[in-house]
Amino acid sequence: MSSTQPVNRTRRTFTLPEATALLARTPKTLDAWLRDLPEGWLTGNEGGESWSPTDVLGHLIHGERTDWIPRARRILEFGNTKAFDKFDRFAQFREFQGLGVPELLDEFARARADSVRELQALPIDEATLDKPGLHPELGPVTLRQLLATWVAHDLDHVVQIARVMARQYTDAVGPWQAYLRVISGKQG
Amino acid sequence: MSSTQPVNRTRRTFTLPEATALLARTPKTLDAWLRDLPEGWLTGNEGGESWSPTDVLGHLIHGERTDWIPRARRILEFGNTKAFDKFDRFAQFREFQGLGVPELLDEFARARADSVRELQALPIDEATLDKPGLHPELGPVTLRQLLATWVAHDLDHVVQIARVMARQYTDAVGPWQAYLRVISGKQG
Repeated sequence: MSSTQPVNRTRRTFTLPEATALLARTPKTLDAWLRDLPEGWLTGNEGGESWSPTDVLGHLIHGERTDWIPRARRILEFGNTKAFDKFDRFAQFREFQGLGVPELLDEFARARADSVRELQALPIDEATLDKPGLHPELGPVTLRQLLATWVAHDLDHVVQIARVMARQYTDAVGPWQAYLRVISGKQG
Repeated sequence: MSSTQPVNRTRRTFTLPEATALLARTPKTLDAWLRDLPEGWLTGNEGGESWSPTDVLGHLIHGERTDWIPRARRILEFGNTKAFDKFDRFAQFREFQGLGVPELLDEFARARADSVRELQALPIDEATLDKPGLHPELGPVTLRQLLATWVAHDLDHVVQIARVMARQYTDAVGPWQAYLRVISGKQG
């Protein structure tokens, strides 16, 4: 590489080991953050039908059961000849009703550990990563895109949990609102 | 409380125990997430002068040393008669040059544990929380607003770390970009 060529640090090529490293860490990250936090932090939301950190945990568990590995298997077995089943974005309001955050964290850790084990047992190489699948709304996708989305989806919900909690202090921070992008919503 | 009165779940009143619970958890959250992650995740950024997860860790350590507890002490000692010292938002590029993520995580955990101990030792009650201080740019603030901002600032940087990492996969996720708020930047 020429020394005058700047390195692009804004994009990363998908690799299975790097993706798996992040996926495997999400349960213990959420555990360190949320277990035994005072209840109010865990049930706050952003108004209306928006989700609390507790709701997000249920959504993540439901994804382990019905979304990521099942869709990867669908691609490996059927390619793009059979679309994915639709994902239910509201299952957590039925399935995990009444479960507390400690139980949800335990269940997410179990489910994610199973998923990571299954992922590592699947016959995936560079060629199968390009295998096409069919999303019921988005259309053609690849196994690589599905697995990259799994990682980004974890991080999207980490953002959401932090945002929901930070915005509980929208009024409390007073004039500092202007400096806190998470509260002001300003893009950097 | 009337059963017809909806509970506001979008705002939380500042209390010292709830704030401290979150502040105390940030180091172990970041540790569970970032220690031993593949290097590329930790050095990526959002282009230009934007920060990597590694840069954010340095910034958080610098805040422990020069921002939060020193400013709380300034308010308790001088009220609004002596403005805070300005915070150097770029100190991490000098002070922590060459330190790896494991060393930064260790140092942040030490520094934050010290801060939390000092916070709990400060003579703070409901009346002192309303004590005024003077921010060099924002003007009049209170001790309560400073401490609430400390919490929200942690969460703001959790958002930033997750966003920087997720956006590394902007291209890799393909059509799923549209569904991932952390990548699309769309407000919910």
